[in-house]
Amino acid sequence: MTIIKEICQRAKTASVQMAKLTTDQKNAALHQMANALEANVEKILSANKLDVEAAKTKGLKDALLDRLTLDQKKIQTMAKELREVCTLPDPIGTILSSWTRPNGLIISQTRVPLGVVGVIYESRPNVTSDAAGICIKAGNAVILRGGSDALQSNIVIGNILQEALSNTNVPKDAIQVVNSPERKDAEELMSMREYIDVLIPRGGADLIKTVIEKSKIPVIETGTGNCHIYIDQDADLEMATPIIINAKIQRPGVCNAVEKILIHKKIAQTYIPKIAAELQKHGVEIRGDQTTCQILTPQKIKEATEQDWHTEYLDLIIGIKVVENLTEAITHINKYSTKHSEAIITKDFTKATQFLQEIDATAVYWNASTRFTDGNQFGLGAEIGISTQKLHVRGPMSIQNLTTTKYTILGNGQTRN
Amino acid sequence: MTIIKEICQRAKTASVQMAKLTTDQKNAALHQMANALEANVEKILSANKLDVEAAKTKGLKDALLDRLTLDQKKIQTMAKELREVCTLPDPIGTILSSWTRPNGLIISQTRVPLGVVGVIYESRPNVTSDAAGICIKAGNAVILRGGSDALQSNIVIGNILQEALSNTNVPKDAIQVVNSPERKDAEELMSMREYIDVLIPRGGADLIKTVIEKSKIPVIETGTGNCHIYIDQDADLEMATPIIINAKIQRPGVCNAVEKILIHKKIAQTYIPKIAAELQKHGVEIRGDQTTCQILTPQKIKEATEQDWHTEYLDLIIGIKVVENLTEAITHINKYSTKHSEAIITKDFTKATQFLQEIDATAVYWNASTRFTDGNQFGLGAEIGISTQKLHVRGPMSIQNLTTTKYTILGNGQTRN
Repeated sequence: MTIIKEICQRAKTASVQMAKLTTDQKNAALHQMANALEANVEKILSANKLDVEAAKTKGLKDALLDRLTLDQKKIQTMAKELREVCTLPDPIGTILSSWTRPNGLIISQTRVPLGVVGVIYESRPNVTSDAAGICIKAGNAVILRGGSDALQSNIVIGNILQEALSNTNVPKDAIQVVNSPERKDAEELMSMREYIDVLIPRGGADLIKTVIEKSKIPVIETGTGNCHIYIDQDADLEMATPIIINAKIQRPGVCNAVEKILIHKKIAQTYIPKIAAELQKHGVEIRGDQTTCQILTPQKIKEATEQDWHTEYLDLIIGIKVVENLTEAITHINKYSTKHSEAIITKDFTKATQFLQEIDATAVYWNASTRFTDGNQFGLGAEIGISTQKLHVRGPMSIQNLTTTKYTILGNGQTRN
Repeated sequence: MTIIKEICQRAKTASVQMAKLTTDQKNAALHQMANALEANVEKILSANKLDVEAAKTKGLKDALLDRLTLDQKKIQTMAKELREVCTLPDPIGTILSSWTRPNGLIISQTRVPLGVVGVIYESRPNVTSDAAGICIKAGNAVILRGGSDALQSNIVIGNILQEALSNTNVPKDAIQVVNSPERKDAEELMSMREYIDVLIPRGGADLIKTVIEKSKIPVIETGTGNCHIYIDQDADLEMATPIIINAKIQRPGVCNAVEKILIHKKIAQTYIPKIAAELQKHGVEIRGDQTTCQILTPQKIKEATEQDWHTEYLDLIIGIKVVENLTEAITHINKYSTKHSEAIITKDFTKATQFLQEIDATAVYWNASTRFTDGNQFGLGAEIGISTQKLHVRGPMSIQNLTTTKYTILGNGQTRN
């Protein structure tokens, strides 16, 4: 039997135990896990050092190195987040509804764990404990397959978390790290439909695309955000500017940052120079359509290519396009966006309503920054990612979305006519 | 551009229109569709005759021929079912919840159509109108790809339904039948993730397996049911017998029919001869484990193979196995079942509770026939199938499950800190 199949079988067995645990038992384990991370900071840091050194030799980009590198504070945050998961309400066992049929059958729909959750992610070792925590709280077993650059860190974190489960009711096999960097093992994992109930890719567009292409297991797509803000002719421009700056600047590397601005032609001539100056003041590179380039003429800004309109920059770059009217804005967004977060800035109720209705996206904003698409900002609590797909969950994927339901039917001998 | 891609693009365009329609507009179109079926009975029957004759020449099995063959009554039922879909509440536009955040943002979660639904089914021409009806009511465009044996019938039904839309607000392209029997076209359809939001296979285990293997589009798995009834030592046997007979006999070809009985060893010696005699009286073939074969010795019944325990017979065949205790029954079911509908017959509350909790299935019954797993029987209304998967919907897939949600966020200039 392959290593991957063994891991899967152990996870499946553990998931049966997991489904029976009480909230107290799960919380006790989460606390042990948090304590163990704090007690083993040195061990984690030395494994992480190996990863970071190898990555530097390999010439990994700074942004990726930054995500890979742990320090004492980051490990404390990992522990803190495990403790925060304890405070989340336990979704398992909730009876969503219950009714009696005319023949006397009593039907109830109850929330139960998914079973085994697979998480495939990039070289961010903190995801190892974050994903483990939320999966355990939802009563699942989890199989974690992180990026190969973080392998040493992930193995050590995985071992520490498993050890921490020794004196708890959570079986060790409820948390397993795939300790192979081989692509073929990742592909085998993605074929284990018999054992794994859902696969969650966490990372960039390429990782997600690969998982969708290869997986035989149902996938929850999270993350990619080519987000737009449309500035209508009736926009309050005093409101528009801080929203655009916030959506672009506050954290450019995240999925709900704005990547494109569409501007109504009637205000283009006056507003584009203003917003361009504001953006440039913050170090943002502008790529414009022809009209925008003309308006900004002495500057010789780069003209946006067809590819640009499709691109999630995750960087201090923004595309600006002038549109004829609301309809063109909606059509452009529905064509190029990744259906994540889209905004309109306008004072006009009718146009806002049309935008809110016709834009096909997870979150559609009227007069606010796209940066709010986030479990905590929505008031929904911790999440494992923002689902941009339409099945199962759309938007912040919170602990409740790591569960499924089951019908139980109580009778006293009913048969069907 | 390929034909399939053209179909997909047209569906996508139609879906934008569909999302804007009112309930009255959709119902009006459904009534037109029903009228058109009734007005074109002869046309449908002559196309169907071609299919049936070709299928007979090909040597199609009787059960399949039966599903393929239409008559006036079946067409009237198709029309009636379209009219019944009109009476279903329209799920679109329902606001699931709405709340105000501390910063003043007003967040609402609204039910919206999925967009484009693909349905891949076997040679049952009635599915063409049934699936179209429920998809239209939920505000979606639908692409229908039926079995090649029903091609002529499906093309004609598709044309009639499209024609019926002429004087309605539903665009013609909201209902499209793939008029190619080529496997490569079906495979291309399954790769159209950019255009199709969900793919629903309706049919036997092989069809579903193929779709899961090939599809790049999220799939809702429906249907396969290797269902069990466990007769506990504390069962009321007067209750057990009619439940077993009902679950096996009432409609053996459907997914919620029982396929296996597990019997506690303490009652095996006395109960197996009784239930076997009852089943045989109704023409059911019994395949037993070793103990069952011994108990029924003079009869020389067939011994069940490993394959038998995995098989959904959809026929007058049943497997019987003797188990040591409840735990063995649960383990056997969780290993071999397709997680559809499973039942325990017992008077013991503790054992029933353990069974209800530990069996991993869509529907778990205590003292009732498995035949009730059905949208109408549950009181949930018409359904497009029984989902046996854990994501998006588990159990009867009703009109509400042909939708997704969207967050709308209303602000007055909020930016994130």
